[in-house]
Amino acid sequence: MTKVKFAVAGLGRIGKIHLENLLQMEHVEVVAVMDPMEECRQYAKAKGIPHITSTYKELLAVAPFDSVVICSPTDTHADYVEMAAKAGIHVFCEKPLDLSMKRVVEVLKVVKETNIKLMLGFNRRFDKEFRKVHELVKEGAVGEPHLVKITSRDPGAPPVSYIEKSGGLFLDMTIHDFDMARFVVGKEVEEVYAKGAVLVDAAIGKAGDIDTAVVTLTYTDGTMAVIDNSREAAYGYDQRIEVFGSKGMAQADNNYENSHRLYTNKGIHGALPLHFFLERYAEAYKTEMASYVKSLKNGESVPVDGNDGLMSLQIGLAAIKSLKEKRPVKISEISN
Amino acid sequence: MTKVKFAVAGLGRIGKIHLENLLQMEHVEVVAVMDPMEECRQYAKAKGIPHITSTYKELLAVAPFDSVVICSPTDTHADYVEMAAKAGIHVFCEKPLDLSMKRVVEVLKVVKETNIKLMLGFNRRFDKEFRKVHELVKEGAVGEPHLVKITSRDPGAPPVSYIEKSGGLFLDMTIHDFDMARFVVGKEVEEVYAKGAVLVDAAIGKAGDIDTAVVTLTYTDGTMAVIDNSREAAYGYDQRIEVFGSKGMAQADNNYENSHRLYTNKGIHGALPLHFFLERYAEAYKTEMASYVKSLKNGESVPVDGNDGLMSLQIGLAAIKSLKEKRPVKISEISN
Amino acid sequence: MTKVKFAVAGLGRIGKIHLENLLQMEHVEVVAVMDPMEECRQYAKAKGIPHITSTYKELLAVAPFDSVVICSPTDTHADYVEMAAKAGIHVFCEKPLDLSMKRVVEVLKVVKETNIKLMLGFNRRFDKEFRKVHELVKEGAVGEPHLVKITSRDPGAPPVSYIEKSGGLFLDMTIHDFDMARFVVGKEVEEVYAKGAVLVDAAIGKAGDIDTAVVTLTYTDGTMAVIDNSREAAYGYDQRIEVFGSKGMAQADNNYENSHRLYTNKGIHGALPLHFFLERYAEAYKTEMASYVKSLKNGESVPVDGNDGLMSLQIGLAAIKSLKEKRPVKISEISN
Amino acid sequence: MTKVKFAVAGLGRIGKIHLENLLQMEHVEVVAVMDPMEECRQYAKAKGIPHITSTYKELLAVAPFDSVVICSPTDTHADYVEMAAKAGIHVFCEKPLDLSMKRVVEVLKVVKETNIKLMLGFNRRFDKEFRKVHELVKEGAVGEPHLVKITSRDPGAPPVSYIEKSGGLFLDMTIHDFDMARFVVGKEVEEVYAKGAVLVDAAIGKAGDIDTAVVTLTYTDGTMAVIDNSREAAYGYDQRIEVFGSKGMAQADNNYENSHRLYTNKGIHGALPLHFFLERYAEAYKTEMASYVKSLKNGESVPVDGNDGLMSLQIGLAAIKSLKEKRPVKISEISN
Repeated sequence: MTKVKFAVAGLGRIGKIHLENLLQMEHVEVVAVMDPMEECRQYAKAKGIPHITSTYKELLAVAPFDSVVICSPTDTHADYVEMAAKAGIHVFCEKPLDLSMKRVVEVLKVVKETNIKLMLGFNRRFDKEFRKVHELVKEGAVGEPHLVKITSRDPGAPPVSYIEKSGGLFLDMTIHDFDMARFVVGKEVEEVYAKGAVLVDAAIGKAGDIDTAVVTLTYTDGTMAVIDNSREAAYGYDQRIEVFGSKGMAQADNNYENSHRLYTNKGIHGALPLHFFLERYAEAYKTEMASYVKSLKNGESVPVDGNDGLMSLQIGLAAIKSLKEKRPVKISEISN
Repeated sequence: MTKVKFAVAGLGRIGKIHLENLLQMEHVEVVAVMDPMEECRQYAKAKGIPHITSTYKELLAVAPFDSVVICSPTDTHADYVEMAAKAGIHVFCEKPLDLSMKRVVEVLKVVKETNIKLMLGFNRRFDKEFRKVHELVKEGAVGEPHLVKITSRDPGAPPVSYIEKSGGLFLDMTIHDFDMARFVVGKEVEEVYAKGAVLVDAAIGKAGDIDTAVVTLTYTDGTMAVIDNSREAAYGYDQRIEVFGSKGMAQADNNYENSHRLYTNKGIHGALPLHFFLERYAEAYKTEMASYVKSLKNGESVPVDGNDGLMSLQIGLAAIKSLKEKRPVKISEISN
Repeated sequence: MTKVKFAVAGLGRIGKIHLENLLQMEHVEVVAVMDPMEECRQYAKAKGIPHITSTYKELLAVAPFDSVVICSPTDTHADYVEMAAKAGIHVFCEKPLDLSMKRVVEVLKVVKETNIKLMLGFNRRFDKEFRKVHELVKEGAVGEPHLVKITSRDPGAPPVSYIEKSGGLFLDMTIHDFDMARFVVGKEVEEVYAKGAVLVDAAIGKAGDIDTAVVTLTYTDGTMAVIDNSREAAYGYDQRIEVFGSKGMAQADNNYENSHRLYTNKGIHGALPLHFFLERYAEAYKTEMASYVKSLKNGESVPVDGNDGLMSLQIGLAAIKSLKEKRPVKISEISN
Repeated sequence: MTKVKFAVAGLGRIGKIHLENLLQMEHVEVVAVMDPMEECRQYAKAKGIPHITSTYKELLAVAPFDSVVICSPTDTHADYVEMAAKAGIHVFCEKPLDLSMKRVVEVLKVVKETNIKLMLGFNRRFDKEFRKVHELVKEGAVGEPHLVKITSRDPGAPPVSYIEKSGGLFLDMTIHDFDMARFVVGKEVEEVYAKGAVLVDAAIGKAGDIDTAVVTLTYTDGTMAVIDNSREAAYGYDQRIEVFGSKGMAQADNNYENSHRLYTNKGIHGALPLHFFLERYAEAYKTEMASYVKSLKNGESVPVDGNDGLMSLQIGLAAIKSLKEKRPVKISEISN
């Protein structure tokens, strides 16, 4: 059986994860890697990758491959996707495609015209916990959904320099929850009300962002969702979901370092949640990439496409507008 | 030691609970009971209550007592409290005092002038679960609070006829959560945004109310709270709380029928939450009344006073306004 | 409806519990109480008990009653039951009836001849947790039982002076577990192997007893049970059960002070189990006494009878013999 | 850095796991594999292993390597270890070394004389759950251990043909628990009492074995352990541990398929434990092999050595004798 040939663009933290997972898959061959930094290229070399380049342009020319995995900085995503699309190469791209609706729409147009597959890296859809809740909802175990609750808190805030370029809390962090809100019940969002505050670090406020938020979403059919976020949970990465419906409720809890319970005269003690996304979603990243590879091999549509990226961005931009204007904002108010 | 003499006005479901708890307390003597219904008076007779009347006026005259417990319908509360106050009798009154801010302010004025004690029946403050979270917050275990989450769902909706008179979801159900939001972190609410839907029963919508809601509260210091409500949880009474802060998070879970786990090839099965408030808060009602009696005996101030009732009502009215006007509403917009 | 008339003999810790529960029951009247200690008699007086005596003989003569609740020291049980039986009075007796098989058999003969009802105070049978497991087993939820596991640990050892008279660990503590082992699967024990050690307090060893034990029981059909005991669990009263069978497993956990979880950077913290039997089995004591009263009122057989006491004693004596002779002992080796 | 060269002997289920884990390790090179079955050799070929043989003798000759991983049938272990030792090759061997004490002692003598490293495959020592309990005990979190409880139940019985050669329940299944009992508290066992029954499958009884067991161990210092086993748990693989001591208790639970909770009007439903050892111990197998590789690279002693295998075998043989002779058996009664 012929192997699917891959290139990886960008070997930061997430790029390395995707590379490792690709290297362990049967029917996959990683033929090329690009990264502007010498040490990342050394890393790729040690893994035995045949072709290693320092620019994306070189990467596209160095050898033929079927798909590229784009893990470079956000502001390169749109250009890189377009370039790959025009070369007839399928793309797995880390989210977001771009922070501008206009640009995303342009890119998706190119994707459509070139007829390539584009998958967005909403890794949490492949987490066994959220997936189970999604399946329970889908098979009707909770009846008609009434209320979705998503808790999403990071163990610590990123540097303010990152926040300044990331688009802020709603576009770099909550965007995962916006996607999850759509995914878990398979419904579209119509309206957003966002309330936020600077409670973790005043420097984040000075940079024009918030670090704590409660966002209420209303789906087109009246179902509601509420998301709560914090940039800093002292006890680690907090990722929980709950879907309440006419017949019951499905919940998913955090994953913990271990299941131990220590009983002493001080009380009962247990382990913390897995520290951050690398630990919590290690399996999800594998499943995600395997799903993408499967789509390529079987000529099926990808499980998370460009439109999913567009929708989440739109919700995120509506949240930003809602926060600024202190009122609920219709998704339809956000246009490119 | 002399006993505190009590009368109970109204022997419905909650009146009976208070009566039973009073009867089991040392240092308490229930000297009189009033209820317009014959069967309730028979109930009191079987308990050996010396004086039994069918009107509140008769009750106040039938024998001297120190305190009255008012469990009659909501629309009698304000008048009954005033009448007791003017007679120099301390009052424990089920919430709410009244659905009108203006009327509540009038009553509180009388209470103040007559210098009687008035305690409001926010029983959940005495629940061991919520109390524990309150204490953890108070002693700084979660650091500075950032986010309060309250889930409050009933096992089934009351008759529409009840809803029509109760003031609706926000004033008969969420009002407990508004009080809890203030109590658990000891902060005052400044702004409310309420989103609601009719997802349980269309008849509730026809009666002008909602049955499902998400309410975002902002405290005066920027801390946020989010409350989610449903009139009907298929699995029973769902009462949970979570306070997230700079140093951690404190949670309280439901209380369950029992702790059993049944492991079979189908999965793991456990018991449901205690069905409804009578079961879940049975202990809380005892603690509540004992706290009130202690206040009377020791001449201390009551743990939940008229102002607490006023504040919750104001938040409730703001929620109603927010729902109607589809925008966040400042508490200060609500005046009598 | 006529009330069932009760007397209570012995107002120690457990006697007071039974008295309180009886006082709160409808259709029950406590007409007399006896206790050799002045302060206990004062306690009864404050409760308004009409007749109060300092000897059991006086008690039986002071007024007519239907049933006596015997909570006096163990070495009086057998005589008191016999005396009541001969007077035609039904008996609820705290376990054990006596530490001698021979004496128990004698007493049961009198009980049979006089045709009175005798109920033994194995309160744990009425605990909602164990009861649920019992019901699950009974309705076949775990299939054919293969293995019963009982954990039973006290928060602290009683005084050595108590142990010296109590018959030791197997007769004052494990005897509850022996009864539970029979109750939970409805099977009879055939063989016992007991292993013990002195790990908590050397003084207990000097007094000829052990403080830590593992006891393996074999039922007549080959099913097995294992009980583990300790006189001192640092974290409080540990009372758990597990029944494993051909179709699954049913477990019951401890009951906890509350359900709170505190998440900090140190881990997750929860509350301790309810401290000791008074807290854990408060409800069970009520249900137990209500069941007894119901048996009397309806002329039904009692749910725990003299034979249950005899069987547990026999298992306990076999355990003592096993420990001493370091070998498994057949129940049939123990005779009066 | 030079790589450690490995060969793998036997590519059954467990051999494949070790091979995969070795292939993913840096600093490791798998140079040769042997298996008598063609399809297993094809499997190795597809993995790109340079040298593939069908006999162990050929394997030892085919190319130089530092260590062999022996995953062939039990009855070959002793010979294979000896052959490797005499060739100066370090050995990782699946347990048990042999079912005969005499043979094990002979092999260990050769291991000692040739000065090679021999590690036994007690994989559960590397499970994050058990390891955590071990660490808590070691750091004194439970004080002085009094009682160890190990539950170990398989999801289904192996074929009777396997049981006939495996040495039976105590030598193929409980032997892991015997090792865990020693490991978790770091104490040696002095006496064994084993009770067993045929409750799962009569065919197992006909083959001379049992399928359900309770084994009481006594350590040299009087501490006790109790192990319960079943060949068939309807709900899957049940692997729990509990260490109770003077200051508290440490527990480890099963690992579950996911953490979901589904609340309906039927109760609360959760996922099953991970099905069997391949799932539950997937991580442990990795950690185990990494520990072995680390020992080789650093010239440190292996974490589980031949003596650990000998001790577990001795306890197992004592359990068999105890079951047969229906009495507690001292470990010292078992000699080669």
